[in-house]
Amino acid sequence: MNGADALITTLADNGVTACFANPGTSEMQFVAALDREPRMRSILCLFEGVATGAADGYGRMTGTPACTLLHLGPGYANGAANLHNARRAFTPTVNVIGDHAVDHRQYDAPLNSDIAALARPNSLWVKSADSADAVGPLAAEAVAASFGAPGGAACLILPADSAWNLTNARGPVIEPPRPRAPDPAAVAAAAQAIKAAAKPVLLLGGGACGEAGIAAAGRLAAVGVRVLTDTFTARQARGEGRFRPDKLPYFGEAALKDLDGVDLMALCATVEPVAFFAYPDRPSVLVPEGCATLTLSDRGTDAAAALDALADALGAPAAGAVEPYAPPPAPAGKLDAWAMGAAIARHMPAGAIISDDAVTAGLPIFTQTRNARGHDWLSLTGGAIGQGIPLAIGAAVACPDRKVLALTGDGAGMYTVQGLWTIAREKLDVTVVVFANHAYRILGIEMGRTGGGEPGPAASRLLDLSDPRIDWVAVAGGLGLPAERVETAEAFDAAMARAMSEPGPHFIEAAMR
Amino acid sequence: MNGADALITTLADNGVTACFANPGTSEMQFVAALDREPRMRSILCLFEGVATGAADGYGRMTGTPACTLLHLGPGYANGAANLHNARRAFTPTVNVIGDHAVDHRQYDAPLNSDIAALARPNSLWVKSADSADAVGPLAAEAVAASFGAPGGAACLILPADSAWNLTNARGPVIEPPRPRAPDPAAVAAAAQAIKAAAKPVLLLGGGACGEAGIAAAGRLAAVGVRVLTDTFTARQARGEGRFRPDKLPYFGEAALKDLDGVDLMALCATVEPVAFFAYPDRPSVLVPEGCATLTLSDRGTDAAAALDALADALGAPAAGAVEPYAPPPAPAGKLDAWAMGAAIARHMPAGAIISDDAVTAGLPIFTQTRNARGHDWLSLTGGAIGQGIPLAIGAAVACPDRKVLALTGDGAGMYTVQGLWTIAREKLDVTVVVFANHAYRILGIEMGRTGGGEPGPAASRLLDLSDPRIDWVAVAGGLGLPAERVETAEAFDAAMARAMSEPGPHFIEAAMR
Repeated sequence: MNGADALITTLADNGVTACFANPGTSEMQFVAALDREPRMRSILCLFEGVATGAADGYGRMTGTPACTLLHLGPGYANGAANLHNARRAFTPTVNVIGDHAVDHRQYDAPLNSDIAALARPNSLWVKSADSADAVGPLAAEAVAASFGAPGGAACLILPADSAWNLTNARGPVIEPPRPRAPDPAAVAAAAQAIKAAAKPVLLLGGGACGEAGIAAAGRLAAVGVRVLTDTFTARQARGEGRFRPDKLPYFGEAALKDLDGVDLMALCATVEPVAFFAYPDRPSVLVPEGCATLTLSDRGTDAAAALDALADALGAPAAGAVEPYAPPPAPAGKLDAWAMGAAIARHMPAGAIISDDAVTAGLPIFTQTRNARGHDWLSLTGGAIGQGIPLAIGAAVACPDRKVLALTGDGAGMYTVQGLWTIAREKLDVTVVVFANHAYRILGIEMGRTGGGEPGPAASRLLDLSDPRIDWVAVAGGLGLPAERVETAEAFDAAMARAMSEPGPHFIEAAMR
Repeated sequence: MNGADALITTLADNGVTACFANPGTSEMQFVAALDREPRMRSILCLFEGVATGAADGYGRMTGTPACTLLHLGPGYANGAANLHNARRAFTPTVNVIGDHAVDHRQYDAPLNSDIAALARPNSLWVKSADSADAVGPLAAEAVAASFGAPGGAACLILPADSAWNLTNARGPVIEPPRPRAPDPAAVAAAAQAIKAAAKPVLLLGGGACGEAGIAAAGRLAAVGVRVLTDTFTARQARGEGRFRPDKLPYFGEAALKDLDGVDLMALCATVEPVAFFAYPDRPSVLVPEGCATLTLSDRGTDAAAALDALADALGAPAAGAVEPYAPPPAPAGKLDAWAMGAAIARHMPAGAIISDDAVTAGLPIFTQTRNARGHDWLSLTGGAIGQGIPLAIGAAVACPDRKVLALTGDGAGMYTVQGLWTIAREKLDVTVVVFANHAYRILGIEMGRTGGGEPGPAASRLLDLSDPRIDWVAVAGGLGLPAERVETAEAFDAAMARAMSEPGPHFIEAAMR
């Protein structure tokens, strides 16, 4: 076998069986080796930001890494923004970055760059396999490194000659690390502090929002502890049969108002909350004055176990209250995010996965779906728009039996619009909804908050997407998706009913008013 | 004024009057300040790779920097691949990267990242303006740094509070550096070596391929010196009235065959040529054995002056032979790159600018246009596909009175397809031609050369774009461009005739067989 075989076989041996790829010349051996390893499913993405976002979505749903195949420094850079989001989601990913042959690097050919330097800011682990014999062992090391804990990006640089040279060195099968058990002293301290506090809250990070963590948090709510989650969680179990925590508001002043009087904040799988952006004369840290904070468990600890231990210590019942299935009534009239949220809540089946890159439309839909069928909600964790469509691809590859909805603003959707083609090619069970408000609407809000004042003609033009209006049905159709435009709440409800009952790709342009 | 005003005014004072932007919350003050500085033209791009590629195209045409406006680390990363290409083109650019307020950085909010570390590999200069008073002076320093010489990317990190705080510190007006005068000793040594050599060649880099450099190189050809250019030049004056040098072949073995017997290679604004990629058992360095090399002038030197001095030393006439206007006959039948090249050569007007991201279709069109009207040809300098459409945007903004053609493969075109919208919005005089062969065709060739063998089903699927076929007319139309598909040479010729005679945007999908 050659180094490329050693790589792919070692990855597959370690359970890495999905590869989101955009290869180039330096990766041809990797591509050729895919025909010799049937366990690896390779999925072509027409831009690397789609590949990395898909790996994030896959990892969020499975807890294990997918791999990406990227073409030297520029290929990595194209994927870096969604790896930034994945870093904030603590998602394990293994990124194979092709490079020039080792001896060729010294000549600084046009595609040469400092790949390791580019990759380091978003990575837990970056190494280069500078011989064929090194490839297999480093592949196993990369998988191990990606788990963290918490998880993150491992980047394996693969010089072309390390891929084409022969080797016998298959990498070992590693044991995926288990999260640390909770620290009994921290649990006891948290229990004592909560009992002593007048108005305690428990803040959950994404790692505590899986099915077990949410259930344990529900037990704590049953004994009167207010439970909140971070504003953006990597994956959150919600809907029918799940406990519903509150969400920390996005804008800092709203968060502080919500936390008014709180004298204790217990943190589980997160850190002290801070404002997403700074604004003139507004605080950065979202902990009220006089409020103590303590850490029940960090991001590397088994959050559900820590929450259960805390619930036990507080004498909580075995199960807390959960949400019933109680969708909103059929929406009518004006097509806004509230109406769309109602339609989504009415029609999405149990086990649906929502990838949220909907920006200003996200919160109304999040609110409307709280009594929908049980589902997982994946948020934009790092603030780099263009995550929604790619993440949905990865989630659909990871969970082929579940409906996936990608909710995206029009500005965000354009960032990684190439992903629509991959959804069509792979016939993924993904319904993409684009909220076509023809603006970067969030920036219209932020302009005032940052003190920019009323935008004049030049500024307005940078926030506006209406000239020309994007015909999303044409774009999505041109990329191979069955697409329709709806302009009323009733039409959206009907389109959602169809999309949720028919398997395979769907695209809905929601023409918002 | 605030820091944002100081920035934009200082940039405009220094001749930086085009801003290719995709702003976010942290850049709102910059956006607001655009309304107070009418000299700055701001152009919205729906993805940062479009913005940076446009700045590259602008800089190649004017020799001076445009600026980009990018949103923190992910915004920079999205633009990094085209800044990689710009680095290889030695194009001056000033990239304003918004960041969190200085005091807010410590809290590691979701969009926080190590911007300087991300930017450094592709930049000549990276600094952060950590107070409003620092902004203006650093803006002037960034402009100065971008000139090099040779030119490159200057990245100015702009924390939000440095933009919103007040200041009186406008930056100075800098004197753009002039290229160094040629070294008389190097000129004399080159003249002597060329006279003594049996088979000398002169190799020109992109910096020697402007109108004056090409004219001076033609004088050298007139006294028997064979003149070649690098395979990919940032900008080359060609066609009617210009001297036509040969181009160093892309594949290394073809280059070495072409250079067989050459005993002296004189370098002007370039370095010893190397293969674009390494291949098993093929050389990296493209200098024949026994061939001496010497540097007439480096990339920071006035190449035209060096070439003229060398021509004088060799007793060359005041002007060499130039190409006549002699376009190929009207093409007929099969629509291939040769036919398209003929049509382009027949119809493009004097002063046209060609942005070439056409991959396998590029060389036939380059060959066919050698006797077209005088034009400038901009190559993909760094190998990161997705440059063609953005570069054309920048060239069109820089040169509103010239026709611009963006030639792009379908794989390359998908990378920065968002640029089509900006062409439509700004009503730029750009004709985009997509070569729709529904494949990464170059990789089909490279698979064999890298020893990958005959691709099986898995490998083939990663090189193929035909399932589903992209309907480019739908995509381009959806993004606001008048678009048509042509399937024969005659139809392409007719479409090109129309596009070249009517100002404004055009889009042609060339359905290749």
